[in-house]
Amino acid sequence: MSEHIVTAFDQELNALKQKIAEMGGLAEKMVSDAMLALSRRDAELAQSVRQMDARLDALQREIEEAAVLTIARRQPMAVDLRDIVATIRIASDLERVGDLAKNIGKRVMAMEGQTLLPKAVIGLMHLSKLVLMQLKVVLDSYTARSVENAVDVWQRDTEVDALYTSIFRELLTYMMEDPRNITFSTHLLFTAKNLERIGDHATNIAETVHYLVTGASLPLDRPKGPGSITALSDVSAG
Amino acid sequence: MSEHIVTAFDQELNALKQKIAEMGGLAEKMVSDAMLALSRRDAELAQSVRQMDARLDALQREIEEAAVLTIARRQPMAVDLRDIVATIRIASDLERVGDLAKNIGKRVMAMEGQTLLPKAVIGLMHLSKLVLMQLKVVLDSYTARSVENAVDVWQRDTEVDALYTSIFRELLTYMMEDPRNITFSTHLLFTAKNLERIGDHATNIAETVHYLVTGASLPLDRPKGPGSITALSDVSAG
Repeated sequence: MSEHIVTAFDQELNALKQKIAEMGGLAEKMVSDAMLALSRRDAELAQSVRQMDARLDALQREIEEAAVLTIARRQPMAVDLRDIVATIRIASDLERVGDLAKNIGKRVMAMEGQTLLPKAVIGLMHLSKLVLMQLKVVLDSYTARSVENAVDVWQRDTEVDALYTSIFRELLTYMMEDPRNITFSTHLLFTAKNLERIGDHATNIAETVHYLVTGASLPLDRPKGPGSITALSDVSAG
Repeated sequence: MSEHIVTAFDQELNALKQKIAEMGGLAEKMVSDAMLALSRRDAELAQSVRQMDARLDALQREIEEAAVLTIARRQPMAVDLRDIVATIRIASDLERVGDLAKNIGKRVMAMEGQTLLPKAVIGLMHLSKLVLMQLKVVLDSYTARSVENAVDVWQRDTEVDALYTSIFRELLTYMMEDPRNITFSTHLLFTAKNLERIGDHATNIAETVHYLVTGASLPLDRPKGPGSITALSDVSAG
């Protein structure tokens, strides 16, 4: 392989990595703005999140097309090939993070004018901070190619699940106390679920970084907390 | 390119398509069994769905690895390359369908021993039939490379969303009528959401089939019904 072709591959890979960085920044902003919109009951900010999603979807398509073209033109092998595959996987996870943030924004708009218990939102803000940190750390781990930081994120998913479960239980108690709490609590339940799923995507990206750097997969069984599903059966038994 | 290499590519592509067919059949069975488990309150069947998910995850990894090796070895172009990319995308969507079916199974197990209103499950069974049909038709459209059938599935997503919305509203009314309905209704709300998301993945696969056969994407804006999110605001306003 002549040096000229290697340089072209490096240019194309770097262009892909830049698009991943742009997607990552945008996805983080969408999650952050959606939650800010929730805490402020700001429907206009929520609407702006929905509009950012179009850019994110476009980036994902651009990355996939460019990655496929690079594979066809440059015929990368081994680590170079894993690098390209990694951009496809990460773009897919980030596109889904954007969808989840957009859905949180939609719920904020749907809750416009409704009363809700401010205390019910506190746990959600805490969960969103944790999930945003996971996203930031895992995207940094990709840029730095740091397996250690990626594995940290993967393991910390247990904490995300535990916090999600406690928020879920809390919202259930509000619903049972007073039927007037049911509507907004249902919105918040789904918002919590969306945040937990954003956390799952951060963990997926961690698995991709691990595969990229080591060539091996993390164990099939991601560390999981008890989860909300058993929480429901506990609460109903009590 | 010698005939020998083309034949090897065809063999590898066919092997990938067979794995997609196996994944598709398994994903359909998982959804079907999970819903059967729900209608029968059969925790053992629900547990078996969870075990099938390991096989599905393994297939997805096998497909991704084999697809990447094929690209590296055979250096396919144009339609051949789209064929390989399509298997990666479809495997990713089917793996998520399996996760969603597994989650439905988990909820069935969590609901063991709980009372629920049988009428509340009827709408869900209807939604699951619709979604299973979408999966079947779109997987057939992939095998047959039929853009027409893929577009049908893509358009019918509006129907899936409309049915999901009506089930959501119905479950909200049960929750408001009687606090004793809240726990199981919450399980069913999330089950309905999981089914709606399975429908979304069928639509993703339809988009992939369209791209595979025509080389072009479907419009960014998938047809969407009003959706459950506005349903909640309507119900609370009333």
